[in-house]
Amino acid sequence: MSASARDQANDEAFKRLNDGAPVLTGVKPAGEVLPGMTPNMVITSGWPMPWEQYSGGQRRSLVYGAMYEGLADSEEDAEDKFASGEIVVGACHDHGCVGSVAGIYTASMPVFVVENTAFGNTGYCNFYEGGSPRRLNYGVYDDEVRDQLIFIEKVIAPVIAAVVERSGGIPLKPLMQRAVHMGDELHSRNTAGTILFHRELVPHLMALYGDDPKAVSETDRFLKENEYFFLRLSMASAKCMADAARDIEQSSMMTAMTISCNGFAIRVSGLGDEWFTGPPPVVEAQLFEGYTEDDIHWIGGESHITETVGLGGFAQAAAFSLQRYQGGSAQAMADTNLKMYEITLGENSTFQIPFLGYRGTPTGVDIFKVLETGITPAIDAGVAGRDGGQIGAGTLRAPIECFEAAAAAYEKRYG
Amino acid sequence: MSASARDQANDEAFKRLNDGAPVLTGVKPAGEVLPGMTPNMVITSGWPMPWEQYSGGQRRSLVYGAMYEGLADSEEDAEDKFASGEIVVGACHDHGCVGSVAGIYTASMPVFVVENTAFGNTGYCNFYEGGSPRRLNYGVYDDEVRDQLIFIEKVIAPVIAAVVERSGGIPLKPLMQRAVHMGDELHSRNTAGTILFHRELVPHLMALYGDDPKAVSETDRFLKENEYFFLRLSMASAKCMADAARDIEQSSMMTAMTISCNGFAIRVSGLGDEWFTGPPPVVEAQLFEGYTEDDIHWIGGESHITETVGLGGFAQAAAFSLQRYQGGSAQAMADTNLKMYEITLGENSTFQIPFLGYRGTPTGVDIFKVLETGITPAIDAGVAGRDGGQIGAGTLRAPIECFEAAAAAYEKRYG
Repeated sequence: MSASARDQANDEAFKRLNDGAPVLTGVKPAGEVLPGMTPNMVITSGWPMPWEQYSGGQRRSLVYGAMYEGLADSEEDAEDKFASGEIVVGACHDHGCVGSVAGIYTASMPVFVVENTAFGNTGYCNFYEGGSPRRLNYGVYDDEVRDQLIFIEKVIAPVIAAVVERSGGIPLKPLMQRAVHMGDELHSRNTAGTILFHRELVPHLMALYGDDPKAVSETDRFLKENEYFFLRLSMASAKCMADAARDIEQSSMMTAMTISCNGFAIRVSGLGDEWFTGPPPVVEAQLFEGYTEDDIHWIGGESHITETVGLGGFAQAAAFSLQRYQGGSAQAMADTNLKMYEITLGENSTFQIPFLGYRGTPTGVDIFKVLETGITPAIDAGVAGRDGGQIGAGTLRAPIECFEAAAAAYEKRYG
Repeated sequence: MSASARDQANDEAFKRLNDGAPVLTGVKPAGEVLPGMTPNMVITSGWPMPWEQYSGGQRRSLVYGAMYEGLADSEEDAEDKFASGEIVVGACHDHGCVGSVAGIYTASMPVFVVENTAFGNTGYCNFYEGGSPRRLNYGVYDDEVRDQLIFIEKVIAPVIAAVVERSGGIPLKPLMQRAVHMGDELHSRNTAGTILFHRELVPHLMALYGDDPKAVSETDRFLKENEYFFLRLSMASAKCMADAARDIEQSSMMTAMTISCNGFAIRVSGLGDEWFTGPPPVVEAQLFEGYTEDDIHWIGGESHITETVGLGGFAQAAAFSLQRYQGGSAQAMADTNLKMYEITLGENSTFQIPFLGYRGTPTGVDIFKVLETGITPAIDAGVAGRDGGQIGAGTLRAPIECFEAAAAAYEKRYG
């Protein structure tokens, strides 16, 4: 193929990625809306793998999901049922959603339904569980974790669902744009996004208050106390924006990144459904007190769908406040951010960085630019510990091996 | 006096300025709460001056205030009554408040009551009129301006008053701290402050909604549509914080800046009530389309009480988004901000700048440091036009003459 055919394909892919228009249109149980989900399925982060290949914290998370959903009544029972196929494992990206860390979805869990109104496709994400470092998506399960998941399902999600219905749909991209002007990069910092989203809800919360003051007050409080709330909306938005740029023949633009217990993988627009795998990411993290790098444990992760659309590590220079949470300096963050322009196809026309004179964020990673420069995508992320729970946050680097594998496949397919 | 006595006095002044704890405790008519205000008084920005010395837009603004309050039924009538003393002029700082631009207060206007709970003193500020460039505080008065002032008085202020009463008081300093982490410098950018304040109100807005859905909804909408709303809370907070640092014998710390139609003036902690005057500020502004520097007209201003406590131009590097509104570049903003460390006594322990590694903002201007360095305070501000209305925004520089006059008075008093 000619270089110009690839450039043309990448222009189209970039345009579709850049032009997405995510709108929150509903909150529904995963089992009702996730394409291909069945009641006996537990969905997790990572490329599709058979049950036997899940290990450690990610395997435990799947078991916990089965128990939470009532598909099994003990860890042993769940193990048996996964092994027999009575309970099946699904991979998030195969079902229209993305997972935060282990990313466990069961049929009863509420999910945000986010429509990309520019292209007619939909992305999904489940709810943030709350501020405790001990949560199911970080591989922890006990009475407290279960009660909190039930609280989300029975109290928070119904109120948000009613609000969204009353609203007729909440356009998310304008909120994301403003949040980036207010110190968020919408992966590891979602404070402004959460507050801006909360503000959109107020007229509806007020109108619904009389029907159920307790539930509405608890929802207001949950939004106020959990400034990571918006991450899941950012993820669902990014998912539907990135999916609209898939399957463009000859495009070498990356459309997804994923982490499983077995490593890291990427997907490329012109290369169909295939995942190109590599080792786990390299990590520069600031760990919570009492933890060392030896405690880091990979149990999955797909929140870097945000980096895929030009946010997160690709917008660090918009979010200097993150220093406190994930370490580093403003200068290092700006430098990391600037490097991303060397591996991307364009500058986002919506997400802009005030510090860089409102320059659009670097958007649309080209696998060949990664290989030419040796610069790999920078990813803001939380880090899980070997015994479950969040133990810190920092910047991850996608492994170069994924890009090498993708480039080889690209050469093979397009010559 | 010895240098160490001055240093000691300045340490104390800085400490009092830094340690203030502003809490919004009420919303009341100015005539009920402003110390020394009388029903026939119109209060304006600037040092106290006799009626004859007011000219141009500031004089017109006083006339308009008298008409709004019903003290006069025409401009001529107002002029006559001011001249005869039937209507009297007050200076904001003499009555516990600070004025935005012309800063017109009449007895019926609602004001925020902000208590400095660390030192027991109180500051006041009236309400933001709304997004139109044509407002009374910018020297404009017509049916639309009047109706909007009535709307604030009759709809918005009563709801906020009820909310504040229900809340038992809203601590403002934590909101100000967070706002500075989210891109505000709390003078020319108040977006995060407004949204964070709005969020504090939500539980009370929900509870009050049933009593008067229309007024509560309109208040919610006003807060959402007017992201400058928080400026008046920032000003009242800064006023009571700065006032707590007044009258410290031998301190050379500046405790207020003001602008009138006749120039600029400052007040110094160890120099009592005296104002040290100079010419109008030098301005680098980005003017709205169609205006030139010749159109700039000085009609008053005291919102730079925010700079006095380490915000505004002293926190520009926290608010790169301001580029769009007042021009300049991120680098220029950071440079301007860094220069302010050379003329201040310390670094704020609450207001911190993420871009500077969470360094505290430069706080407490020492008049002698200004004279030694030749660096004058940088002030973010809106700019009024000669025919009234806002015509732009930019950075002002306090004139050196004020500091020279203050230093001369200091030498005379303390030797």
